[in-house]
Amino acid sequence: MLTIAETPFSSRLFVGTGKFASSELMARAIEASGAQMVTVALRRVDLNNPQDDIMTHLDRDTIHFLPNTSGARNAEEAVRLARLARAASGTNWLKLEVTPDPRTLLPDPVDTLKATEQLVKEGFIVLPYMNADPILALRLQDAGAAAVMPLGAPIGTNLGVQTALQVEIIIEQARVPVVVDAGIGAPSHAAQAMEMGADAVLVNTAIAVAGDPVRMARAFKAAVEAGREAYEAGLGRPSRQASASSPQEGMLTENLDFLQG
Amino acid sequence: MLTIAETPFSSRLFVGTGKFASSELMARAIEASGAQMVTVALRRVDLNNPQDDIMTHLDRDTIHFLPNTSGARNAEEAVRLARLARAASGTNWLKLEVTPDPRTLLPDPVDTLKATEQLVKEGFIVLPYMNADPILALRLQDAGAAAVMPLGAPIGTNLGVQTALQVEIIIEQARVPVVVDAGIGAPSHAAQAMEMGADAVLVNTAIAVAGDPVRMARAFKAAVEAGREAYEAGLGRPSRQASASSPQEGMLTENLDFLQG
Amino acid sequence: MLTIAETPFSSRLFVGTGKFASSELMARAIEASGAQMVTVALRRVDLNNPQDDIMTHLDRDTIHFLPNTSGARNAEEAVRLARLARAASGTNWLKLEVTPDPRTLLPDPVDTLKATEQLVKEGFIVLPYMNADPILALRLQDAGAAAVMPLGAPIGTNLGVQTALQVEIIIEQARVPVVVDAGIGAPSHAAQAMEMGADAVLVNTAIAVAGDPVRMARAFKAAVEAGREAYEAGLGRPSRQASASSPQEGMLTENLDFLQG
Amino acid sequence: MLTIAETPFSSRLFVGTGKFASSELMARAIEASGAQMVTVALRRVDLNNPQDDIMTHLDRDTIHFLPNTSGARNAEEAVRLARLARAASGTNWLKLEVTPDPRTLLPDPVDTLKATEQLVKEGFIVLPYMNADPILALRLQDAGAAAVMPLGAPIGTNLGVQTALQVEIIIEQARVPVVVDAGIGAPSHAAQAMEMGADAVLVNTAIAVAGDPVRMARAFKAAVEAGREAYEAGLGRPSRQASASSPQEGMLTENLDFLQG
Repeated sequence: MLTIAETPFSSRLFVGTGKFASSELMARAIEASGAQMVTVALRRVDLNNPQDDIMTHLDRDTIHFLPNTSGARNAEEAVRLARLARAASGTNWLKLEVTPDPRTLLPDPVDTLKATEQLVKEGFIVLPYMNADPILALRLQDAGAAAVMPLGAPIGTNLGVQTALQVEIIIEQARVPVVVDAGIGAPSHAAQAMEMGADAVLVNTAIAVAGDPVRMARAFKAAVEAGREAYEAGLGRPSRQASASSPQEGMLTENLDFLQG
Repeated sequence: MLTIAETPFSSRLFVGTGKFASSELMARAIEASGAQMVTVALRRVDLNNPQDDIMTHLDRDTIHFLPNTSGARNAEEAVRLARLARAASGTNWLKLEVTPDPRTLLPDPVDTLKATEQLVKEGFIVLPYMNADPILALRLQDAGAAAVMPLGAPIGTNLGVQTALQVEIIIEQARVPVVVDAGIGAPSHAAQAMEMGADAVLVNTAIAVAGDPVRMARAFKAAVEAGREAYEAGLGRPSRQASASSPQEGMLTENLDFLQG
Repeated sequence: MLTIAETPFSSRLFVGTGKFASSELMARAIEASGAQMVTVALRRVDLNNPQDDIMTHLDRDTIHFLPNTSGARNAEEAVRLARLARAASGTNWLKLEVTPDPRTLLPDPVDTLKATEQLVKEGFIVLPYMNADPILALRLQDAGAAAVMPLGAPIGTNLGVQTALQVEIIIEQARVPVVVDAGIGAPSHAAQAMEMGADAVLVNTAIAVAGDPVRMARAFKAAVEAGREAYEAGLGRPSRQASASSPQEGMLTENLDFLQG
Repeated sequence: MLTIAETPFSSRLFVGTGKFASSELMARAIEASGAQMVTVALRRVDLNNPQDDIMTHLDRDTIHFLPNTSGARNAEEAVRLARLARAASGTNWLKLEVTPDPRTLLPDPVDTLKATEQLVKEGFIVLPYMNADPILALRLQDAGAAAVMPLGAPIGTNLGVQTALQVEIIIEQARVPVVVDAGIGAPSHAAQAMEMGADAVLVNTAIAVAGDPVRMARAFKAAVEAGREAYEAGLGRPSRQASASSPQEGMLTENLDFLQG
């Protein structure tokens, strides 16, 4: 079972709450996904208007909220947002996002490490979003990150785990859970990440903007479970040589003999 | 629901029976897979020794047998094997395989078409194994094939759907079900084929030689269902442009105001 | 040196003549490409208007014309077009194209083989365009094809050698030259095909519609030569393990000693 | 023409000096490559034995030496090695490598930035080796790096530009030259990097361990030139739709009329 910061999770699918057409649809999709970890942006926790709050739509007894620092452009802004998020949400868990460039929304390795160090000191449970950089992953672990969240591809692209080679190294070296984040655009991408040995995946856009988000959430749930099960059951290695699955010799004669005999 | 030759199938996962360590393990894996269509090579239907026969291990009330012509090197051998298979198994369904080269086990387009024409005339329900060749797929349909089975990669390679571009065209043009066969080495590959709109996939080696074939069968079952569900739910398109899932603006100020106000 | 039907070619780049903005530009690009083999569609050999004829723009002393059967939808049409092409052009060389579907322009394996058999009997030197189907490649060789021309991707897509796995098998088994045709959209694609051991590549769209076709032709020339040279010089194998190119140990101490000593 | 730190280079191929079977072979391969920028590890500049020194084999009038900090595990070691290299080689150009993990030899983003800042202050012309991290590339430029050297794949793997998506973003945003480094295993990989708009590539292992390093060097030279020329000539876009290069209509009738008329 997946354990992050000594907290067990029976689902390995994390879901984001952005981009859904309505809060009702979001809540139903999350329920269908079976996710126990749900990311929320600070503005979505609308403290002025609790009736319309995302929190009123989700059951906090079964769902773990993971506020993010979406919109932070450097370590300072991220730390400030993190404190606000803790005050507003009552949880010290945090998905750390430091993205200086609003166009690519790619994470800053240096300020992500700096903010992680600071927030760990302040008692946060920090899950940093990061480029698929194996050395940075090691440093974030050393700094006390509770998990690392390497990206598969730039957010919202649906391009899948383009960074597979690096993610494999991150997984091999990791002493904390590895959650593949961003770029996961189809259940097959999620299954692939799990087959590689990722501990969990985070999906948002691909569910939220699907033709039918509730069915798509169910599809991702099944794919994540399939990928994990395959990882545990032991996959065969790819090979460039063909190999028969059915016997190739002796059949014709043998059976002809029988039938004509 | 998948329908081939007017026969409905509730499972879109077809499973082969080769390479399992034992018939008992094979039977348990097939049960876990939920497959209703199971391919068998002629020699495996051991008519001399019914006790050890593959058929005694599988429930023919729920499982549809699909004899193959594994080992046939040309149309003539395939037709001969097909007749033997019908006589031995009592079914007129047939997975047609014509593979002249024992090293690559790749199908012969010309003799596959020739054998299909002949076997359809003889009343067989023919599902030909074929290269991912869109024009050949059209011709096989015209010749009366009940489904077409393009390969994803050479058999036993576990390389996945390397022929995706051609399989997409085959699916787009198909008037009969398209079953992706060969090369499917992981649940993520099966999910990908289903997301592309394939009607079913056939898996053998990846389940049979897994560390735990029963769990792997379960993983493939879930992945095939996930891929199909995603296809029906409507997947988003890949894009090379990033796109935020969380709101990026106004948060810091807005929330600071709230907390400091 | 490349030899087809006992004719030596010093260039391994074949070029098509379609889609150029003008015949002058076409002629200059072909000259820059260094190609000695140039494909022409029948209509382009305009017999009514010799002044505007493609042939007047190219030097037939250095350039070998390869008429194609572009537009033929079956073996019969291809054979008819081939005879016309021979009559009009005076050469018995032929690029055989049989493409029943005007949308995908993918080749028909069965009628391609049938037309090859017929045309070889009639004394043509036949180079058939084909799907990347290794068994078909063997059959076309057996039928007397002077070379085989498997596609890298559907024509005009610029997607590169998507069929690499199959093309590798075709090359390994070939007793006649293998010319990768269609889909080659960039010099890197051409180099890749040559590195795999292809004997030549055919490029048309990527040169004809480039911003500057003459420079692009030069780029393809260099890339084809580079790919061939690399194939002959012996490429290293890809590996998933890193390996240092510079020495990693002992340097700091050793050199410090020297400088401080 | 490529310009780094106001120094023009007529060749866009940089070559490393490690792993060659002999210094003579290395010198001949570098000459064949046409490279004007050559990386050297500190120990290779053997100050105790000038006769066997790499420098005696290369013509420093035409070749620019780029000492690297190979073996440095953190910023401090890199700075120390850089100073030694400057003292030993007489150049203030530096390829900065900070690789804490001797197994993967992947670069450390944080200490690479730190060392860049320090070395720029000390008057070095710094070309940092880095993960293909677009935000880090921006920060290194801001810190005064004269170029950035993102990796295509882990060093010595020959896997090509696995990081294409990120390298494209780095190129798009760059205000200094982008040199793709590590992983370039074949001329086609080098051509691909150049077609994407990279300013140069660095190759070492693929040349040094080739069957014939001198021919392989020549192949890379041609491929880099081809890729650059194609970039400047304007490549067509890939498309999933086929598009004819030869005319498809009217030919049969038209020409039949002519011949039979």
